[in-house]
Amino acid sequence: MGPHPAVAAIRLAVRRVLHDVLTDRADNSSAVSSVRAGEPPLVLVACSGGADSMALASALAFEAPKLSVRAGAVTVDHGLQAGSALRAAEVVTRLRAMRLDPVESVAVTVGREGGPEAAARDARYAALDAAAERHRAAAVLLGHTRDDQAETVLLGLARGSGTRSLSGMAAVSGTSGRYRRPFLQLDRQTARKACLVQSIPVWDDPHNTDPAYTRSRLRHEGLPALEKALGKGVVEALARTAQLSRDDADALDTWAANVEESVQDDSGQLRCAKLYVLPPAVRRRVLRRAVIAAGAPAGSLFARHIEEVDRLITGWRGQGAINLPGRVEARRQGGRLVIRQG
Amino acid sequence: MGPHPAVAAIRLAVRRVLHDVLTDRADNSSAVSSVRAGEPPLVLVACSGGADSMALASALAFEAPKLSVRAGAVTVDHGLQAGSALRAAEVVTRLRAMRLDPVESVAVTVGREGGPEAAARDARYAALDAAAERHRAAAVLLGHTRDDQAETVLLGLARGSGTRSLSGMAAVSGTSGRYRRPFLQLDRQTARKACLVQSIPVWDDPHNTDPAYTRSRLRHEGLPALEKALGKGVVEALARTAQLSRDDADALDTWAANVEESVQDDSGQLRCAKLYVLPPAVRRRVLRRAVIAAGAPAGSLFARHIEEVDRLITGWRGQGAINLPGRVEARRQGGRLVIRQG
Repeated sequence: MGPHPAVAAIRLAVRRVLHDVLTDRADNSSAVSSVRAGEPPLVLVACSGGADSMALASALAFEAPKLSVRAGAVTVDHGLQAGSALRAAEVVTRLRAMRLDPVESVAVTVGREGGPEAAARDARYAALDAAAERHRAAAVLLGHTRDDQAETVLLGLARGSGTRSLSGMAAVSGTSGRYRRPFLQLDRQTARKACLVQSIPVWDDPHNTDPAYTRSRLRHEGLPALEKALGKGVVEALARTAQLSRDDADALDTWAANVEESVQDDSGQLRCAKLYVLPPAVRRRVLRRAVIAAGAPAGSLFARHIEEVDRLITGWRGQGAINLPGRVEARRQGGRLVIRQG
Repeated sequence: MGPHPAVAAIRLAVRRVLHDVLTDRADNSSAVSSVRAGEPPLVLVACSGGADSMALASALAFEAPKLSVRAGAVTVDHGLQAGSALRAAEVVTRLRAMRLDPVESVAVTVGREGGPEAAARDARYAALDAAAERHRAAAVLLGHTRDDQAETVLLGLARGSGTRSLSGMAAVSGTSGRYRRPFLQLDRQTARKACLVQSIPVWDDPHNTDPAYTRSRLRHEGLPALEKALGKGVVEALARTAQLSRDDADALDTWAANVEESVQDDSGQLRCAKLYVLPPAVRRRVLRRAVIAAGAPAGSLFARHIEEVDRLITGWRGQGAINLPGRVEARRQGGRLVIRQG
């Protein structure tokens, strides 16, 4: 008798990603000196102790030895709740019981920049990056599921900034593709079921049900209401939207990068007449690239900023300079767009 | 003292569209013989008797004479509810009281194809097209608001078929841009308020609150829950997403059309090696075009069909022919993709 279907599903997902990691590593080993031939590669799992990442850890512990991969884990103690250090120690104990090695708990200090959720995420990834480098890990696995992906797409939708913001989380991301998300096509229920049938105790983060957090409201109220209105396929449709949007955004970014040189004059300034004839989607991306190149921080640059710059091209009626984030200004001058930091 | 802000807003929106219609008409008048110089153009409003379209009719009645435009109206009796003919007659009376002329009620028979909402829409547009041609109308105004647009984007999201399905309704659509949607940037509340302060009686279609209809569930449950989770800006963000997605989809369609010839061999078959190096977003669009050109009905062709065809290029392992809607099949043969109707 084989394993429970949920356990089979999580293992298959991890096995596929480990194969990818080994293939990519083989492709790079001739070129990159940091990968020592012969040394078995280490794959870490980032584990909060919740059902998704505990399921991921269990699947990694099962699959890694079969592929001669060393499997380790990192749990990040955000220090945001009373008793968080104790909980992190508990998670470490459980991960060691799965025979993962190394296993470590890293305490971080969460700042305030960008709101509580963004600050916690920044601190977490900085700690994971450091752990990956300390251990020379070939990859770090993250437990995000298809449900997390659906929520991320809806959060992007609420920003209203287009195709890129709808593309959710990538299956592969980070420095040289360090982060991998094996469960991005798997639903949360499967991960939870896999823990249950394997008798793995899981920890339910109270933040996940706290209505003070946008993602929690989305998970417990927004998405269920949307499913009630639109049918059960919504989560899958949102996840598919993420993939299609990512590909579309990538293609359009490529187009904008390729066309850039042909719309510049010899001094590198953008020629308005050349910009005018581009498709609006491409023109706006060229403008965004130029504004960022001039020093505007990408994160503060919204669709409405670029629309205003675009009107210097498509709705020219002698308007003055446009002020943009990062003290960048854009003005039209002699048929050229002059974009510079003040 | 000027008009109430809501009334000013609906009039401004209609004035802008009338200007566009007159400009487009002037551009075409030299080329198109059906536009007779000197004859005042007729603009029709499609009016259900609901708040959105009654507000639109009132604004058209006010603005048209100032621009020497004749203003008329059509109301469509779908015959789906008891007393619908009587109601249509009432709407006609109200529209005539606004001094619109011509005003007519058109009874249609709603079929069953594609579900009740799609069948009603098809019958309605067929009747509006016929009325526009009968009266040689320069344009037909539709009362869709920003809220309708947000709902349409969410319905597209539920299909999960990518950027084009997120692009909502166009401000200008139909044969030679016949249909115009002046209220696409205006919220439903403004239209309702404009009716109230002008003492225009409105009819609330019971279908709009009937939870048997997907759009009604979305309006009364899905969107409010999403707003509660994500904040009040959701409707605006969805409407902005529609515009950005439309531009992105247009640009990518252009790319696919431009690249098509270069990936075909002399007999018009697609060369797999040339397809392989295209960005996935462009390749999938080239494949979709080819499958539709071979006879597959666009409406029955889903993202998963195209993904399967795409695997003949990106995941070739000798698989057989792919069966597609409209008895079209795609197979890989000698480095070519052979797509034809059986």
